[in-house]
Amino acid sequence: MLINKKYYRTIWNDSKKYPSVYAIDQNLLPFKFKTFRIKSSDEIFSAIKNMNVRGAPLIGVAAAYGIYFACVEAKLKYKRVKERWNYIQKKYKYLLSARPTSVNPKWAMDKTLDAVKNICDFDELIFKALETAKMIADEDAENCRIIGETGLEILKKISLKKKGKPVSILTHCNAGWLACIDYGTAASPVYAAASLGIPLHVWVEETRPRNQGAKLTAFELGQMNIPHTIITDNAGGYVMQKGLVDIVLTGADRITARGDVCNKIGTYKTALSAYDNKIPFYVCAPVSSIDFSIRNGLNEIEIEERSNEEIIYAGEGKKRTRLTSPGSPVRNFAFDITPARLINGIITEKGITKPDKNKISKLFHI
Amino acid sequence: MLINKKYYRTIWNDSKKYPSVYAIDQNLLPFKFKTFRIKSSDEIFSAIKNMNVRGAPLIGVAAAYGIYFACVEAKLKYKRVKERWNYIQKKYKYLLSARPTSVNPKWAMDKTLDAVKNICDFDELIFKALETAKMIADEDAENCRIIGETGLEILKKISLKKKGKPVSILTHCNAGWLACIDYGTAASPVYAAASLGIPLHVWVEETRPRNQGAKLTAFELGQMNIPHTIITDNAGGYVMQKGLVDIVLTGADRITARGDVCNKIGTYKTALSAYDNKIPFYVCAPVSSIDFSIRNGLNEIEIEERSNEEIIYAGEGKKRTRLTSPGSPVRNFAFDITPARLINGIITEKGITKPDKNKISKLFHI
Repeated sequence: MLINKKYYRTIWNDSKKYPSVYAIDQNLLPFKFKTFRIKSSDEIFSAIKNMNVRGAPLIGVAAAYGIYFACVEAKLKYKRVKERWNYIQKKYKYLLSARPTSVNPKWAMDKTLDAVKNICDFDELIFKALETAKMIADEDAENCRIIGETGLEILKKISLKKKGKPVSILTHCNAGWLACIDYGTAASPVYAAASLGIPLHVWVEETRPRNQGAKLTAFELGQMNIPHTIITDNAGGYVMQKGLVDIVLTGADRITARGDVCNKIGTYKTALSAYDNKIPFYVCAPVSSIDFSIRNGLNEIEIEERSNEEIIYAGEGKKRTRLTSPGSPVRNFAFDITPARLINGIITEKGITKPDKNKISKLFHI
Repeated sequence: MLINKKYYRTIWNDSKKYPSVYAIDQNLLPFKFKTFRIKSSDEIFSAIKNMNVRGAPLIGVAAAYGIYFACVEAKLKYKRVKERWNYIQKKYKYLLSARPTSVNPKWAMDKTLDAVKNICDFDELIFKALETAKMIADEDAENCRIIGETGLEILKKISLKKKGKPVSILTHCNAGWLACIDYGTAASPVYAAASLGIPLHVWVEETRPRNQGAKLTAFELGQMNIPHTIITDNAGGYVMQKGLVDIVLTGADRITARGDVCNKIGTYKTALSAYDNKIPFYVCAPVSSIDFSIRNGLNEIEIEERSNEEIIYAGEGKKRTRLTSPGSPVRNFAFDITPARLINGIITEKGITKPDKNKISKLFHI
């Protein structure tokens, strides 16, 4: 999508400098736009851990590139095939530990390893790992584009009912193109509708503690000229109570077999508000976000607990300000679970599905 | 209650310097403890508007002192009784406009004016206005103490069921003694239980955008040695999902005749989370917070919209950091409405009542 009217993806391979991947540094957005070079699997780990790259689909692709780097490093460090594979396996686990909640890194790394596992020649293997990571990126972009086309049909219907008045969407966190490779998940239907000239307005919940809504979603929407308003997470319920929201769209970090959705902390409260006000709540995610191996999100998904400094402080360096009472303990849970019963539908690249085990399992056979 | 082991109230009259009221500057807490002198009705207005004093019961008492100052000023400025009363009426409306959502300022000012309306001698009238404001403060403290004793019974029952394991309370915003004169509303049962040695833990939702939870509630609890943990507002739902909360206690800015509760933005989402997890949700407030003239909170209460700078920036002066994407519109709704159906009970100084018109109306006849 566009930044300063120029087309970008969030992450890309540059074949001129070997081995290297470039990405947009999302910790600097929206105040500074900068891309940075990644040269190793450890740097991929840091970029994911420190959230220079973030968003479930994007960290999936980044992790796939991490496997590519691990293959390059294995060849340089070790002669024996067994040692090389031990190294790659070690890096796989290490990369997995960077952000434990999303299913995408595991999915993308498994896919990459699967593509190379039977290749004996290590140069060929490295080439194939890179090609696979690039293919996952391309597929993600295409999936997001289709999610947009699919979700568009829902927004069109609302627009018809509202007779030209703006369709009012509420979103939590950033499930825009910055969280993916291009288009976004929850944002993709919005961009698709806007490109048809459908009038829109997006309420953006700021999304404490890291403010991905106020910083990234608002930035994206601004760059794409989509009318929007930032509110506190607390105010999301109020704008729904006042009848100012037609539909809620969010992303997902992991979807269970029965349709529970693990997503950024606060999504559950937002879903409860939508449910209480009879506002449709849709989750937008590629099929790769579905983890069919688990059923009960609340019991089976490991919820990442991040550094409490994200809550205690705002600003950095000399500008760092304390927001909490000194001496008071602080805990920073990063995700929650929205139970299937609160979700009207999951919008995927294979169509819209009800959050229900049988219906979800059909997606895997399309 | 205690600050640095010394007993304070949040606001008090000092008869040594005439006319004057002192208060704790809550904008400086928890980082700096400072009291300040208020000398006029305009200074009362500023202190309420800028939230140097805040919390529904406290701004009620502050507004009553505002009427006292207005009486003093009227006598100094005008000779004719009619002009004096015009001035007082003007100041009444002005003080009312400082924070439109809470019912307490209106209630306390009406009570003060009612006490003095038939007094002809202006010195006597000024004396009576001051005595009335002081009496409202004393009554508020006593009401809060009784709210604590009343709510204590609920906490005792939970403690018995949990067989000595800590009772886990969640609260939103600051409904502690800093919001009142002493004891607090939602915090009062907690202090009462702690004083009996009942083991407790309080989850404190930070309460964006002004962080009264992370700043004031955490500070209060810390000063009183009550175990507590600050979390984001977004995480309140998650700790409930995980079974880590036994009861939710909040305050109220205004309660309607049928039991809808207007309180700090985000209370509605917190109440929805409690309801969804079958966790009892109690509102603690003096009977003076009930506005029997209104029924439907959502349609009939004017919700204050505050400056969006509270959301856009953190920190002050050189430390001011931007939290939102430049150019993106931001709106700051300060309160929401928790419908009666989500509330298990309202804990007042006259007992616990169901949020129901008939039961609430009985409180006025006790």
